[in-house]
Order: sequence, then structure tokens, then C-alpha cells
Amino acid sequence: MKNLVGAAIFAQSGGPTSVINASAAGVFTEALKQKNITAVYGAVHGIKGILNEEFYDISKEDAYELNLLKYTPSSVLGSVRYKLKDYKVDDTDYKRVLEVFKKYNIRYFFYNGGNDSMDTCNKISKYIKKSGYDCNVIGVPKTIDNDLYGTDHCPGFGSAAKYIATSIMELSLDAKVYDIPSICVVETMGRNAGWLTGAAALASYKGEGADLIYLPEVPFSIDKFVDDVKKVCAKNNNKCIAVVSEGVKDETGTLVCEVLSRADNDINTDSFGHKQLGGVAVQLADLLKSKLGFKTRAIEFSLLQRCAGHLASKVDVEEAFKAGVKAVKSAINGTTDKMVIYKRQTVNGKYKCKVTLGSLSLAANTERKVPLNWIINDGTFVSNEFIDYVLPLIQGDAKAPLVDGLPRFANLKKVLVNKK
Amino acid sequence: MKNLVGAAIFAQSGGPTSVINASAAGVFTEALKQKNITAVYGAVHGIKGILNEEFYDISKEDAYELNLLKYTPSSVLGSVRYKLKDYKVDDTDYKRVLEVFKKYNIRYFFYNGGNDSMDTCNKISKYIKKSGYDCNVIGVPKTIDNDLYGTDHCPGFGSAAKYIATSIMELSLDAKVYDIPSICVVETMGRNAGWLTGAAALASYKGEGADLIYLPEVPFSIDKFVDDVKKVCAKNNNKCIAVVSEGVKDETGTLVCEVLSRADNDINTDSFGHKQLGGVAVQLADLLKSKLGFKTRAIEFSLLQRCAGHLASKVDVEEAFKAGVKAVKSAINGTTDKMVIYKRQTVNGKYKCKVTLGSLSLAANTERKVPLNWIINDGTFVSNEFIDYVLPLIQGDAKAPLVDGLPRFANLKKVLVNKK
Repeated sequence: MKNLVGAAIFAQSGGPTSVINASAAGVFTEALKQKNITAVYGAVHGIKGILNEEFYDISKEDAYELNLLKYTPSSVLGSVRYKLKDYKVDDTDYKRVLEVFKKYNIRYFFYNGGNDSMDTCNKISKYIKKSGYDCNVIGVPKTIDNDLYGTDHCPGFGSAAKYIATSIMELSLDAKVYDIPSICVVETMGRNAGWLTGAAALASYKGEGADLIYLPEVPFSIDKFVDDVKKVCAKNNNKCIAVVSEGVKDETGTLVCEVLSRADNDINTDSFGHKQLGGVAVQLADLLKSKLGFKTRAIEFSLLQRCAGHLASKVDVEEAFKAGVKAVKSAINGTTDKMVIYKRQTVNGKYKCKVTLGSLSLAANTERKVPLNWIINDGTFVSNEFIDYVLPLIQGDAKAPLVDGLPRFANLKKVLVNKK
Repeated sequence: MKNLVGAAIFAQSGGPTSVINASAAGVFTEALKQKNITAVYGAVHGIKGILNEEFYDISKEDAYELNLLKYTPSSVLGSVRYKLKDYKVDDTDYKRVLEVFKKYNIRYFFYNGGNDSMDTCNKISKYIKKSGYDCNVIGVPKTIDNDLYGTDHCPGFGSAAKYIATSIMELSLDAKVYDIPSICVVETMGRNAGWLTGAAALASYKGEGADLIYLPEVPFSIDKFVDDVKKVCAKNNNKCIAVVSEGVKDETGTLVCEVLSRADNDINTDSFGHKQLGGVAVQLADLLKSKLGFKTRAIEFSLLQRCAGHLASKVDVEEAFKAGVKAVKSAINGTTDKMVIYKRQTVNGKYKCKVTLGSLSLAANTERKVPLNWIINDGTFVSNEFIDYVLPLIQGDAKAPLVDGLPRFANLKKVLVNKK
């Protein structure tokens, strides 16, 4: 824990969100202010940018554009999915990171991402500490999945939840417009944690929304699902909106999309061993059509749910920005090997969020799921506790200014630092 | 053409849009002001509400809620897809409409919809005229497809275009974030007219968007499509966003989704004989994956593109409201058998829209397509004329107020009129 003088590097990793660039804006604007930070770099494509010695010189950017990053979705520096091996098995990448850090006198390292990225950040942090090289390392969380351990919630989740809730309110108005049966199966992201799927309940809370919600925390029975839909149809003039997580699994732990497709070999797998999911809504909608004889429709929010900056939550954007600022201030004060976390504080009945620090190791590989006692109605809905938890996180609008009726996103110069 | 005293009835029909209720707000607020209108009714589920004698008494609604209709997507009265037979073949429905009109002294009939609904409106208008019963009939256009003949553009199109352009800008930022190949096939609505598909070019105009755009006006060759994508990939680091209309057809006029699925019998058909489309993006993405060996992704905007009130264009909302007002004022002044149309007027280089009247018969069954000379780059993009045409229609925001971070849509009492 030292007060260091040198360059700072920031990198983005994993699936983008609406607010990962808001954290970038926080890191960059704060780092550019700090006297002890001699240069501010943005790594191109996460850890790969460090390994490849490819980074942008952030001091070359206009303050106006850096501020627009707050309202620009996706990862402006480029992201990556690249798993570092255990350094005891293969320390090639670690040696290379250290070499690059030394070459550019990088004394501050900020890594922005979800579980896997915190794993990368944690491994580098531990290796650097062991090496004796002084560099303060802080993880900046992000994930629409909201599954990082040790923080009340994750930057990116509130905006994705707001997108899902708003879109389902609108879909509900649309899907129920005719005087004929209408069954809609909506698929959200969330492999193992059902926070996003549960966010559909916010729409129901507003009187327009999902009738059934299936989270991956609870085993999914295909037969029960068909029965559940039949029951809603019987009560509800043959209209039903069912929201399912991409990651719903049967009692044996097999993904429902695999069970239904029986074509395991056709499913892509990424470098972390995660299967590329999607398609369960289409399969369930087809199944319902054959079982009920009604027109059915599958809607997959796909990438839209994580990049819809036009529906970003103001609370989410502001907190994500503060998370970036906190990372820099903490590192400057000599802190290392931590992740920025959010602590919820209810003051006079009002939501407040304290941006502070937590364990990087714990966050690295522990998934935080929806508490089972928040999943109600025989696994088909979420409780008021869930609503109370999510509602403060989706408040307010914070979107890019409009030019010609379309968002004016940040436009960075992206000046590459000359390789040394 | 008479100045009549009696009740007014308004009905909504066809696929909903973000602004069909803005036209409803225009009709209702204006009709409630008119002394010659003795009652204002909203038919439940379009023409079926008239046949079934089911209508809401709009005078029972709060002015605040009626105003919120401007920002409430979908069809608040319920919609319908019901094709009237030619009255020379079977005049049962026509006799019934006339019976209901007489029973409730309905002297003003406003029908809000697209091509098929204007067909219904036109048939009723002609039948009533022939019958000698005095009732002024005005069609109020709406369709996200923008394919109604005789009007510069259609209410609903601007908002859907804004949704598509904004979402593709965001998707483009997201889909290109990794340093690996990324192919995205995006599917928009539009059976025979490519206005919505072309709107993807607005995103490109802003520097973030579609690389290839395929409209249904031009025959689609699957082999050429694969080649086009290959060429973009070669130039563009194996990244490509291709936008296709749900209605693209091969040179024989067969839908590409049918060619690729070879399962014609599995495709639903609605009561107008339109096939229920969708799925061409999934099929093309699968095809590209097998041909190129890259990860591909299909994104279907599905219902989202027509119900995303949160991204409604202010220009669209205001014009749709005015269209409703114009319909009532024209009918009060004795006009009948017309459709409200928009005329574009460029004043000092600025877009202006005159809301006036046009032929109902012509609009009824003529589809207005994208001019072929606006489709460029060997059928893979649209010209600057297209951009200049669409851009004024997507200006400004006009969304529902937020309560708890979510839209506060209109909440009507929906008091049914007692059957006589």
C-alpha cells in the first residue's frame, strides 16, 4: 500500500453494459486530475491491450467527449474474453504484464468487468504483489447480471433492469391488443442468476407485465411450465406473457434449451467454458404452440438489453461514474488488491448508496444469486422484497444528448501510445 | 356532405404503433369539444366492437388520462384483424353496422389503421353513402410500415424508424466490441415496403450502424448475400451488421424465410391472407455461420419496434394527434369518405407538415414502396434521398412521464355504454 508516482492504465473486459463507459469516464476524469499520475492509458481490448502494448493516450481526448462517455453504451476501449491461466501452471502472460508495466512505469491498474474479469484482476494483483513491483490494483465492477459477490448491486444492472421492465410494459400493451389468444415467451440474459429475469416483475408491479417469471435459481420443469401457462390462459382470456432466463435448467442441471434442442454439439462455447446461450424462448414458444394450438411468439432481448443506453438509469450512470472515481482515489491513497463495491444505506426511508471497497478475491469467482425466498408462487414470480430491492436502481433518465433525433455518443480520438 | 348532429365513434385496427393512441387522443379531445357531437364512443376491438355493440363512453374519462394517451403505445381500445367481405357477396356485416349506427344515432365514424383498415373504412363509407344514411366517415392513417398511398408518410413510422436507428447505433457499438469476428443479422418488420429496414441507414449516417441493408423491393439472392457479407468482413476486420426486412423474397417472389426453411405449411396465415413472418434473420445467421465459420447472431426487433413508446418521435406524436383533430374537424364541416393525409412542405429549408385530406379509396389497397432509385449499392443500401426523407420524421422525444423510473401510461376507466 504505497503512494506511487507513475502511469495509470484502465481496461474494460467481458460483456459490455450501458454504463461501463460511465465508469471509464469516472476513472479518466479523476486520473487526469491526479498529480501522482503521470499518464493515463486506456488498454485496447482489455488485458490483451496490455499484453500487446496497445493503449490509447487519454490525455489527448477532449473533456467534452470524455463526459459523453457517461451516456455511451458498450465498451469504448474494446472488450475481451480472455482467461489467464493459473500462474503456477503458466506464467507467460503474467511476466509479460509485469514487463509492460515496468516499461511504461504503470503504477495504477484498474480493471473493469464482471466475475471473470475480477478473476483476471485478482490474479494479476496477486502476481504483482508477489513480484515486489509496486502497482496499486483496483477492480471496478460491472455486469448486467448483477451476480458479483460482495456488492449490494452491480453497475449496469439497473439500466438493464429498466430496459427489461419498460420493454415488457410496452410489449404487454401490444401483445394483448387483439381479441384472440396471445402467448408471448420473452427471454432475458442471466446464466445462473435471475436478477434480470426478475426485473420483469417491475412491469407487473405497474400493472402491465409478465404473468410468469422463471429464474435459473429454481429447477425448470417443461411440463409444469406448460401447465402454468394453461392456468394463466384459463384465467386471462388466453393471454399470457412468460419471461424466462436464458439459463433455466431442468432438475438434472441440463439447460432447457439443450433438452429441447437435443443438439448439444451445436452450442458454441466461449473461452471461459460458458456455452453461448439463447433460443430457449423460441423453443418454449414452439412447444406451447403445439400443446395449446394458439399462436405464440418468442421475443429475445438479446444484446439490446445490455446496450440500450437510451434507457439507462440515472442512478446507475451516476453510481458507475462514482465507482470509477473511487477506484482512482483509493489507489492514489495507497490501496491495492480491492474491488469497488456498493453498500446500500436507507436514510429516512430513502435509498442511498455508499461507494466503498471490498474483497477482490471473493468477488472474483463467487456468483451472487437471487435469494430463494424471494422466488415465490411455486417458482413463477418474485416477491415484494425483490421489487423493493430493484426499484431504487432504475430511477431517473440519463441518456446522450440528441442530435438529428439520434443519440450523440462519445467520439474519442483514440490516439495510440507509441510503443517503447 | 352534411353538418350532422349525433354520436361519434372511433375505432382502432391492425397492428398497433407507438402513436395510434396519440391519434385517439386527438379524435377524443376534439370530439368532446364539438357541440354537434352528442356522444363520443370508442369501439372495443375495432370494427368488431361496432358489430358487437361494445363501446366505451369516452366522456367518462379524465382529461389527464386522455392526454396521456399521446404517450401510451399500442391500441388502447383493442385492435382487430377482421376482413369485411364485399357487400355484393355478403352484406350481413354492413347491415349490422348500419343497424348499430342508427340505434345509437352515430353520425361520425373515424377508423384508424393501415391498408387493410382503410379498406374496411372505405367499404363502410361506400355502403353507408349508398344506403342513404347520413354519417360522415373519415379514415385516420397509421402504420409503422409507412406504406399507405397518398400521404407523404404515415403516423407511427417516424417512431418505429427512430427505434430502429437508435437500437442499431447501440447494437453496432456492442456487436463490434470484441477483437473476434462478429456477424449480426438484424430483422425488421415490413412485408413489402422497406421503409423500416431502410431506417437502419440513419444509424450508418451517424457513423454507427448497418453495413448492409436489404429491402423487400429488390429481389434477394442468398448467394449474393453471403458474398456481400464476405466482402464487408474482408474490409472490416470480420465484423458486419446486415439488416434485412422480414419480407425479403427471391427472384421468383418466394419469401427467403420459406426458401430457407422449406416448411411452408408451418407458417401461420392471418385472416387477410398475410403469412406470419419472422425468422429470416435466424436462418440467414445460421447460414452465414456454416459458410464463414464465424460466430453469428440474429436479432429480431419483433414487436419491440412498434410498441417502444419510450423512443417515440415527438414529430410523429404531434402529427398523429393533429391527424385525429383534423379528422373530427373535417367531419364536423361536412366532409366524408376521405382519409387524413400528410403533405410535406419545406419552408426556408425546414421541414413542415400540412395535415389535410386525401382519397380513401386510393389509400385502401395501394401499397407505397420505397422508390427503386433510392435503393443503391447493388441493392445493399439506401441513398441520401432516403435519409433526407426520414430524418425530419424522427426528431424530438415525447415519452410518458416517469413514475418510479417507469412510464406512466394512460389508465382509462373503460366504461362500457349500456346496450340499447
